[in-house]
Amino acid sequence: MFRFSSLFLSRRHNHLRRHSLRHLSSLTSQPLELPLSFPTYFIWGSNTGVGKTLVSAGIAASTLLSPHSQFHYLKPVQTGFPSDSDSRFVIDKVAQLLFLRNPHTPLFASHSVLNVSPAVTERSIENHEIGEQGFGASKLICKTLYAWEEAVSPHLAAEREGLEVKDSTVLETLHSCFRDVVGSGADKERSEIMCVVETAGGVASPGPSGSLQCDLYRPFRVPAILVGDGRLGGISGTISAYESLTLRGYDVVAVVLEDHGLLNEGPLMSYTRNKVPVLVLPPVPKDPSNDLMEWFEGCHSLFSNLKEIMHSAYFERIKKLHEMPKKARDIIWWPFTQHKLVPDGGVTVIDSRCGENFAVFKAQDAEVIAPVFDACASWWTQGPDAVLQTELAREMGYAAARYGHVMFPENVHEPALNCAEVMLEGVGKGWASRVYFSDNGSTAIEIALKMAFRKFSVDHGLIPNSHEDTTDGSSTDLLVLALLRSYHGDTLGAMEAQAPSAYTGFLQQPWYTGRGLFLDPPSVFMRNNKWMLSLPQGFHFGNLKLDSITFASHEEIFHKGRDKSKLAAVYSSYISKQLSGFKGSANIGALIMEPGKIFYVTFLSQLIKCHFSFTLSSFVFIIQGSGGMHMVDPLFQRVLVNECRSRKIPVIFDEVFTGFWRLGVETVVELIHCVPDIACFGKLMTGGIIPLAATLATNAVFDSFIGDSKLKALLHGHSYSAHPMGCMAAAKSIPWFKDPCSNPNITSEGRFLRELWDDKIVRQLSSHPAVQRVVALGTLCALELKAEGSNAGYGSLYARSLLQHLREDGVYMRPIGNVIYLLCGPCTSPEICHQLLLKLYKRLEDFDGIKN
Amino acid sequence: MFRFSSLFLSRRHNHLRRHSLRHLSSLTSQPLELPLSFPTYFIWGSNTGVGKTLVSAGIAASTLLSPHSQFHYLKPVQTGFPSDSDSRFVIDKVAQLLFLRNPHTPLFASHSVLNVSPAVTERSIENHEIGEQGFGASKLICKTLYAWEEAVSPHLAAEREGLEVKDSTVLETLHSCFRDVVGSGADKERSEIMCVVETAGGVASPGPSGSLQCDLYRPFRVPAILVGDGRLGGISGTISAYESLTLRGYDVVAVVLEDHGLLNEGPLMSYTRNKVPVLVLPPVPKDPSNDLMEWFEGCHSLFSNLKEIMHSAYFERIKKLHEMPKKARDIIWWPFTQHKLVPDGGVTVIDSRCGENFAVFKAQDAEVIAPVFDACASWWTQGPDAVLQTELAREMGYAAARYGHVMFPENVHEPALNCAEVMLEGVGKGWASRVYFSDNGSTAIEIALKMAFRKFSVDHGLIPNSHEDTTDGSSTDLLVLALLRSYHGDTLGAMEAQAPSAYTGFLQQPWYTGRGLFLDPPSVFMRNNKWMLSLPQGFHFGNLKLDSITFASHEEIFHKGRDKSKLAAVYSSYISKQLSGFKGSANIGALIMEPGKIFYVTFLSQLIKCHFSFTLSSFVFIIQGSGGMHMVDPLFQRVLVNECRSRKIPVIFDEVFTGFWRLGVETVVELIHCVPDIACFGKLMTGGIIPLAATLATNAVFDSFIGDSKLKALLHGHSYSAHPMGCMAAAKSIPWFKDPCSNPNITSEGRFLRELWDDKIVRQLSSHPAVQRVVALGTLCALELKAEGSNAGYGSLYARSLLQHLREDGVYMRPIGNVIYLLCGPCTSPEICHQLLLKLYKRLEDFDGIKN
Repeated sequence: MFRFSSLFLSRRHNHLRRHSLRHLSSLTSQPLELPLSFPTYFIWGSNTGVGKTLVSAGIAASTLLSPHSQFHYLKPVQTGFPSDSDSRFVIDKVAQLLFLRNPHTPLFASHSVLNVSPAVTERSIENHEIGEQGFGASKLICKTLYAWEEAVSPHLAAEREGLEVKDSTVLETLHSCFRDVVGSGADKERSEIMCVVETAGGVASPGPSGSLQCDLYRPFRVPAILVGDGRLGGISGTISAYESLTLRGYDVVAVVLEDHGLLNEGPLMSYTRNKVPVLVLPPVPKDPSNDLMEWFEGCHSLFSNLKEIMHSAYFERIKKLHEMPKKARDIIWWPFTQHKLVPDGGVTVIDSRCGENFAVFKAQDAEVIAPVFDACASWWTQGPDAVLQTELAREMGYAAARYGHVMFPENVHEPALNCAEVMLEGVGKGWASRVYFSDNGSTAIEIALKMAFRKFSVDHGLIPNSHEDTTDGSSTDLLVLALLRSYHGDTLGAMEAQAPSAYTGFLQQPWYTGRGLFLDPPSVFMRNNKWMLSLPQGFHFGNLKLDSITFASHEEIFHKGRDKSKLAAVYSSYISKQLSGFKGSANIGALIMEPGKIFYVTFLSQLIKCHFSFTLSSFVFIIQGSGGMHMVDPLFQRVLVNECRSRKIPVIFDEVFTGFWRLGVETVVELIHCVPDIACFGKLMTGGIIPLAATLATNAVFDSFIGDSKLKALLHGHSYSAHPMGCMAAAKSIPWFKDPCSNPNITSEGRFLRELWDDKIVRQLSSHPAVQRVVALGTLCALELKAEGSNAGYGSLYARSLLQHLREDGVYMRPIGNVIYLLCGPCTSPEICHQLLLKLYKRLEDFDGIKN
Repeated sequence: MFRFSSLFLSRRHNHLRRHSLRHLSSLTSQPLELPLSFPTYFIWGSNTGVGKTLVSAGIAASTLLSPHSQFHYLKPVQTGFPSDSDSRFVIDKVAQLLFLRNPHTPLFASHSVLNVSPAVTERSIENHEIGEQGFGASKLICKTLYAWEEAVSPHLAAEREGLEVKDSTVLETLHSCFRDVVGSGADKERSEIMCVVETAGGVASPGPSGSLQCDLYRPFRVPAILVGDGRLGGISGTISAYESLTLRGYDVVAVVLEDHGLLNEGPLMSYTRNKVPVLVLPPVPKDPSNDLMEWFEGCHSLFSNLKEIMHSAYFERIKKLHEMPKKARDIIWWPFTQHKLVPDGGVTVIDSRCGENFAVFKAQDAEVIAPVFDACASWWTQGPDAVLQTELAREMGYAAARYGHVMFPENVHEPALNCAEVMLEGVGKGWASRVYFSDNGSTAIEIALKMAFRKFSVDHGLIPNSHEDTTDGSSTDLLVLALLRSYHGDTLGAMEAQAPSAYTGFLQQPWYTGRGLFLDPPSVFMRNNKWMLSLPQGFHFGNLKLDSITFASHEEIFHKGRDKSKLAAVYSSYISKQLSGFKGSANIGALIMEPGKIFYVTFLSQLIKCHFSFTLSSFVFIIQGSGGMHMVDPLFQRVLVNECRSRKIPVIFDEVFTGFWRLGVETVVELIHCVPDIACFGKLMTGGIIPLAATLATNAVFDSFIGDSKLKALLHGHSYSAHPMGCMAAAKSIPWFKDPCSNPNITSEGRFLRELWDDKIVRQLSSHPAVQRVVALGTLCALELKAEGSNAGYGSLYARSLLQHLREDGVYMRPIGNVIYLLCGPCTSPEICHQLLLKLYKRLEDFDGIKN
């Protein structure tokens, strides 16, 4: 200890400042960017006491050998303080070691503790600096972010000592330290600076709030160095720790462990298939009086090697991130994308996702990984927050390990059965009896059509029950009844069920013919705080005065009592007339619709409070068609269903978008007071983690496929029908979304989501001069921007500049022409939604679409 | 120690037998069934020294309190023997404890060591028995399966001491012990008997062969009790161990840990969301002279509680397994299944998969979980062996945690880019430049058709380049050119590209019209060891004598030189004539085919050795059509491609089934010497773990979608386009299959799989009187059974009894009419294939299809 003490004292008296302490951090909220202009690593331990701090110090010493270099050591959470202080250990050992190696190396080192618990007396904190900051001096900056006195798990210490720290606060403090590193190293080369963050205990040890540290730090997803365990049992502990990091999406760059003579490195290297280097440290002297200088010297080349590994992994990552956009442009063919119109710099590199946020690579000013709210919910698939994502990841690993995929016909496995049960008890409750699995919304629709046509054919005697020869065909032409501006998917069968549109032309699909009778539905819209009715041509009113039909509230619109109104009779006769036009060889064999379509309402709070809601889907078409956001009159949809039912025409609901709380209710059946014979689900069904779809049907539909011949069965099936991972994700997510214990947005009645979009801002938005209409509903908040001519419609680039600015604010939206929307998940907190609205409002202030 | 010693001695002298020892087990190979007629649990430790054996003893004592009960304790792997012997500890402590509780309880206990390393002297083995087997006596049977002297990790001990044991041997020995339990407990109630297997060290500690124990024991997938760690750092170690078990598909039923005053149970319970009970044992006395009797007594109610948890989880599992078939029948709608024809008892409960094997629940004689080889490769999707499955499971957990799903258009993420690169360097090498992702083979085909039609339209001036309005359509009718008996998927667009069949009739798909020119292709077949040609009507031979066309070898058939033959000219003129029939409004806009179709050859070894192979797909149709297994003449396919190319008709290869080594080569392009413009892949692409498909295209095809308007882009895309989990599975599996380091079946040239099906048995099968033809090719071995009339064809149930017997033998096959097939993975060992063939041959001996 002698050498060290003298060194320490000789340097220490140069500067000794006391840093100000904050007992509870209250940083302003800001996007938690991870700087990439220098290498940053997390040091994780496979257990406590495996030597994380020794490794940190070793890397520091190795880095600081280069002149002008900087090393930043951050210890976010320290317990047992001040007697234990890893940060102090690092500064002491490294300073001593560097002095030993070359007493004339100019070094500036500082050590500070940012926040301590009240139990820690201020006197005991030894913040200090060593050496002079000056030209040529290497820099070692060590910081302890939060410290507690008791040597127990941080969550216990925090609870007992009164320094309780929220996860977001730890992250913000850490983020602020990262920014300090950026500032401090602004003039440095990438290779001259390194930042290391040392965790506390093992990978899954709780942080101050009780969150596991591997979960707590996940938003940054910093690459990992895992300090393994060289003792007996250490192979297992190291591998398990590695797997916990893997299960959170971390990249482990190297494993380091102390040699205990058990050759643990062998099985570890074979476990990683030599893809992750495993480095073995010589045995650490156990004598507490040993100053470890000899040991560190003996580790010199090993730490230098480790530092090189960390550098090269860093440079490789940076290189890859920079190259990805060009590579993607060269070999990827994106769906729904005109490659020629993707602007330079327009390719987003998504490094990861954490809950509702993408982590994207930005390289404009400085290179960073920045969180961006996925406000398009990745094509409306997303639902999980970070907690559910972690749970789903574990389920996916489990399902893949337990089942991989297994063949489905005539077989049963738990996930499929659980998933089917959960659906029949939820979205299919009260009407559905059977679940048919497929891969996506489009295939679910094709299956639904096959089901409906068979049911119709059986009911209408088009297939004699005894006749099971299939080759004959029939001279009957079966069509669907559908609404204009509907959209049911991209495969040909699903496309045939939609009216002609930009997707169906010869340019896109030469085989499209449009096998339907497509009705232009009546809609309601709001004017002067009253709901008015808009009827397309073809309706005959008799002595009914159209002007007199207004609605004071949504309750009125959705009220079942309207079934007895004169308007219902008008609808009914209109539909009858349309259907009677199809005599002879053409038959309407199925009704297919997205139940409910709505738009434009600013009084969302009332809407939700009245327990009414609406479904919205394919709003691009609504806008494109009539130039405004109207709602299909739910009465019309109900009359349509009734008319079809009375004619034994099977009814299909397309709930691919609306299912599972997207619009505030688990299924829109709850709103429009009528049930289908067949319904299709997809997208959010698995929590948005994996493709899976399902077509639900009544037993009556199922029975029309029962017979003595296999050829009468529904001969449709995809290779991965009911794949266990998908079913397990669905069986986990669907109950998660509806359980108030896991989803705080579920109201006490359990049937509605609470209001996510702040009523006040929604109103403000709706009266903004740039805005035509706003709909805030369930997880969706959509805005129609005022636009005319070529600025309106699907092909419009009108909103691009606005959305570009919003991406800078950390909000990832995609336009549909002049409509933009925010879509969150069923569990997203209203606070987050609030922030999104504020950002949107702020950017709208500067938006002048016409000039942009 | 006094009390215990006297007890021990007093009982011990009753019986003391020396068991025979085997130094290396050589059990015959048999299916590793797990009996379910009593509860069996594995005791895992989150680390070494956490008290697994105490827990085992506690459960044993609790179980044996009930009269007539039996407890079986198995310790497969013991190191440090004989000074450490967990098995001896258990028998000693439990016997002592029971005696203390009630000295008059009749107990029979035995302890034996089955195999010891040569380093262990026989003298030191204390096999012994206590008490009398007799009416009313409870039974405690303790066995150590393998023991080594050195107190190190088993893989080191095994290496050093010379008792090396293969994983399969450990499993077989364990299986044999399970059967002993069954025999011994035959007259017991379920609740009177329990079996516990205690592992060594931590969950991921290596076993004797070096395999991690959590991998080693995975085929049994026995439910787990995890003994956690109550010390500092123990939360992390326990959670990580839990996750390692989860990542192998184990169910953890309870966590037990010793109290060290750190309240570790709190975070553990919140981690499992209270779904897994966490039990806390009082501190264990550290004094080695303490006989622990007091401690055990203090744990009495806790162990009794744990035993109840184990019982109720067991009974719940049994109940669920029994109920699943009925529940499935009630609510599931299986694809391609006539529910009325599913026989009683015909629903297979798949409990899990391990590599190529399903683990199915059988309840005929006794309840067991039995491995069954998935010989239909779950609709041709499967490839992984157990090792790859574990790796993929970890990748799936990682991908889900890192990305979940993220939106694709205009974005890029690593898995998508890696997957695209791997495909362009492999199956697309030499021709493809772009990758378009979708969800399954059917959607990949629909996308391919859209691509081809656009390319054709642009090339043939059907769409003026300046004209980008899509609503016009065109009066042109675009058809595909395809071969009879083709099949490309179940969605309407894919169906339209196939000739009429059982799948396309009005009963199945009223919208099907068959938008193609479907050619009946020439085929080759073998007779008298010569390859002959079979030409459908419509070919004109001129002065070419058909009889003279024979081929001595496959080399001849595939030889590129045939392009200059007269037959090539005949093909060419036939094709020209067919195409010229399509003038006016109808155009052939694309050629779509499964490249190569073959059948019937017994000389597989030569086939492979000659570097020739064939593709087979949709063989159901081949058989249905011509009643025999022929091969489409590859020359005809090549001429077809050339004729189309010269007419600027884009060529689509459907490689959904054939891609990725299914038939011995990574892509069949290698065999037929011509490339497509577009190709579709799916099924095995992800290693069979998750749905994903891709359509590959040339840059020329891609360019036909480039323009100034979004409306000219390919407006097709599914919600989960390029989902990261799928892409990551593909980017892992595709290189895995082709790398000789991971796939020993790859030959040194790296272009072919070695022969998997034993030539001798294949020949024997082919000359079996019940067999018409055999094809053994790549991962496929197909048999056409001799059948006539209604026994032949798709609807036939002819093979049912044969396959039923094979399921009893552990081989899960599905018939396609009177064709049955074995399909393995690219990594499956020839030894396994050999066993499958032997089983098949044996059952064929008893098969009389006509009488069955």
